[in-house]
Amino acid sequence: MRMQQGNMVIAQSGGPSMVINQSLVGAVLTAMDSPAIGRIYGARHGIKGILAERFLDLRRERRATLEAVALTPSSALGSARHKPSPADCAAIFQVLHRLQVRYFFYIGGNDSAETVHIINEEARRACYGIACFHIPKTIDNDLRENDHTPGFGSAARFVASAFIGDDLDNRALGGVKINIVMGRNAGFLTAAAALARTAPDDGPHLIYLPERPFDLDRFTADVQRVVQQRGRCVVAVSEGIADAAGTPIAAKFIQETDAHGNKQLSGSGALGDMLAGVLRERAHITRVRADTFGYLQRSFPGVVSVTDAREARGVGVAAVQVAVRGAVASGSIAIRRKPGPRYAVSYEVVPLRRVAKETRHMPPSFINRAGNDVTEAFLAYARPLVGPLPPVGRFRQLA
Amino acid sequence: MRMQQGNMVIAQSGGPSMVINQSLVGAVLTAMDSPAIGRIYGARHGIKGILAERFLDLRRERRATLEAVALTPSSALGSARHKPSPADCAAIFQVLHRLQVRYFFYIGGNDSAETVHIINEEARRACYGIACFHIPKTIDNDLRENDHTPGFGSAARFVASAFIGDDLDNRALGGVKINIVMGRNAGFLTAAAALARTAPDDGPHLIYLPERPFDLDRFTADVQRVVQQRGRCVVAVSEGIADAAGTPIAAKFIQETDAHGNKQLSGSGALGDMLAGVLRERAHITRVRADTFGYLQRSFPGVVSVTDAREARGVGVAAVQVAVRGAVASGSIAIRRKPGPRYAVSYEVVPLRRVAKETRHMPPSFINRAGNDVTEAFLAYARPLVGPLPPVGRFRQLA
Repeated sequence: MRMQQGNMVIAQSGGPSMVINQSLVGAVLTAMDSPAIGRIYGARHGIKGILAERFLDLRRERRATLEAVALTPSSALGSARHKPSPADCAAIFQVLHRLQVRYFFYIGGNDSAETVHIINEEARRACYGIACFHIPKTIDNDLRENDHTPGFGSAARFVASAFIGDDLDNRALGGVKINIVMGRNAGFLTAAAALARTAPDDGPHLIYLPERPFDLDRFTADVQRVVQQRGRCVVAVSEGIADAAGTPIAAKFIQETDAHGNKQLSGSGALGDMLAGVLRERAHITRVRADTFGYLQRSFPGVVSVTDAREARGVGVAAVQVAVRGAVASGSIAIRRKPGPRYAVSYEVVPLRRVAKETRHMPPSFINRAGNDVTEAFLAYARPLVGPLPPVGRFRQLA
Repeated sequence: MRMQQGNMVIAQSGGPSMVINQSLVGAVLTAMDSPAIGRIYGARHGIKGILAERFLDLRRERRATLEAVALTPSSALGSARHKPSPADCAAIFQVLHRLQVRYFFYIGGNDSAETVHIINEEARRACYGIACFHIPKTIDNDLRENDHTPGFGSAARFVASAFIGDDLDNRALGGVKINIVMGRNAGFLTAAAALARTAPDDGPHLIYLPERPFDLDRFTADVQRVVQQRGRCVVAVSEGIADAAGTPIAAKFIQETDAHGNKQLSGSGALGDMLAGVLRERAHITRVRADTFGYLQRSFPGVVSVTDAREARGVGVAAVQVAVRGAVASGSIAIRRKPGPRYAVSYEVVPLRRVAKETRHMPPSFINRAGNDVTEAFLAYARPLVGPLPPVGRFRQLA
């Protein structure tokens, strides 16, 4: 296969992140400089924008505007959670064919990769020659084939920063503080709370991940033990914690399900309130507070990992470079960590089906034996992704 | 009254803030340079630390450490919510007398001012000569006699920043987003969400404050109207919203009350979840999310208003300067805004009883007629306290 001339469509899908616009702008600026690519259409709200023919002509945007958008959180083109049917695909190809589109780029997580995979398969079936590429994004860090994913480092930076402040707050007034962290299937983002610790008695003192069955009795006993030892306790809990049967604890309070079959776990404080209630009743702890970090984790402006922003840009650039080179007609860009003492990554192309749909979890080596904390191996993995955190000043007499 | 020689005790009380340690360090550094003041005791956890004789010798801390503490969120000495009884006061005076303490500084909100007032009155009754000064702090911005209070500007900066990101997030995926903001009696912090707006259709689109009776029917109708107009809606709701009888809406879900008789409104997602449930049921809106910003508003590291940090330092410095000058034996430092086009403040001493206990509310001129938004007068008031916010990059074709 050789380089084909044509127009391109790019869109964003799934939950936004702090750096998803870096990927968009990386791809667009690379496309602008590529002789293979003519018009650059930005579809509004994912594939829904293709179906509704709602496009931006991204060549008309100034470079300064693009660079400002790159630094702005959330998905500048709008997002969607829409799984295309065969009929959708046929309608999409009609639109794309009329617009002479030969390149399709979709920025998102595993569900977005599934969407690209479906479109790519349907395009082959329809004999429509289009290069289909998935550009990775997810704060959950749960894409297969990737060492880590764009969006995770910045969200992890927010979570770790939040725990630094919240642990200092808990020191001041005591009691138990539960913080619910995003991550439907994978505990990486919750685990990042551990990066907040710089002194021996810093919180979080307990960390509960979806990778280990959650048991209310063990949770209560754990918290009681920490309170007895330290007079206080800060707990990081993933929104995705599930019982031994695999049923999410939060599922009892949940009403909505999206097109990909995912239950909505975020945007509610119910899980934290339930856990706080259990501690008040069973453990007779009087001051118990629960916060659910919610959408701030993926949208709070200014709390960005420099590494994450650079790599988010990098995967966007790589996707367009790979597509116009034409050696492969479809794929997903994956971030691989190079071996060696110094942190470095490479971007590689992997088949769409290896990234689509299924997610990856925290490896066992990242979780402690008791299932209530992370290991040093996780901290070593996560530190370069998050970067240096805000310093904490402490009186020497209290150190 | 002339300058008296003696040792000093300083402590922190009530909810922590991002800049309460600036006030502590401002007072300590000023005391270190004052010939009137000998030892500088930092009491742990407010007046509970005096009663338990848990002190730090703050002269032993290096300046670099003090400056690092000043930049660190939460109350470095620990905090408390303890209202002193006459017996407590007698015990406190025994400790202070033995330590030859002639200066007492207490950093906190209206309840802390009440504590200083009680201690000051009891000291006069006991003929114990001690200078008692309150140093203002509250993210709620509800201290009487003050144009605004240290801690508010940084918390407002967090809230406004959060709404910038969250509004962009809501644009991407649509639906209704409710964010619950701190503020037990006063709506200032919730109102600060309005600073997030820079484009005509930016959220928050509705703002509900404790100063106006909250009505579920009107709330539902307001949200429905915005959704019909814009296809989405971002709402800022104070945790302190109350019905026409003055009963906090959140009170139905609340279990704890502190020593000053305040109900715990924070540390629970119940209010937001209830409001989201009402919109799903009554307005048949499918995508409704609620986040409760919680303790991050007062503890998130690095999101600080430069003006707020400077003034928090300033009131600590002023308290010690006024105390050692000896013209008055007690008082609270109040921030007054100087008239004129350029923002400038002065620090003045006011009697404790004028700041203690009672709180102030948003003036009517800051709230729109419908009671669901703020006015330009509020924005002009708040802007210099918060400082320039993170910029938002937007495609010109979407502007």
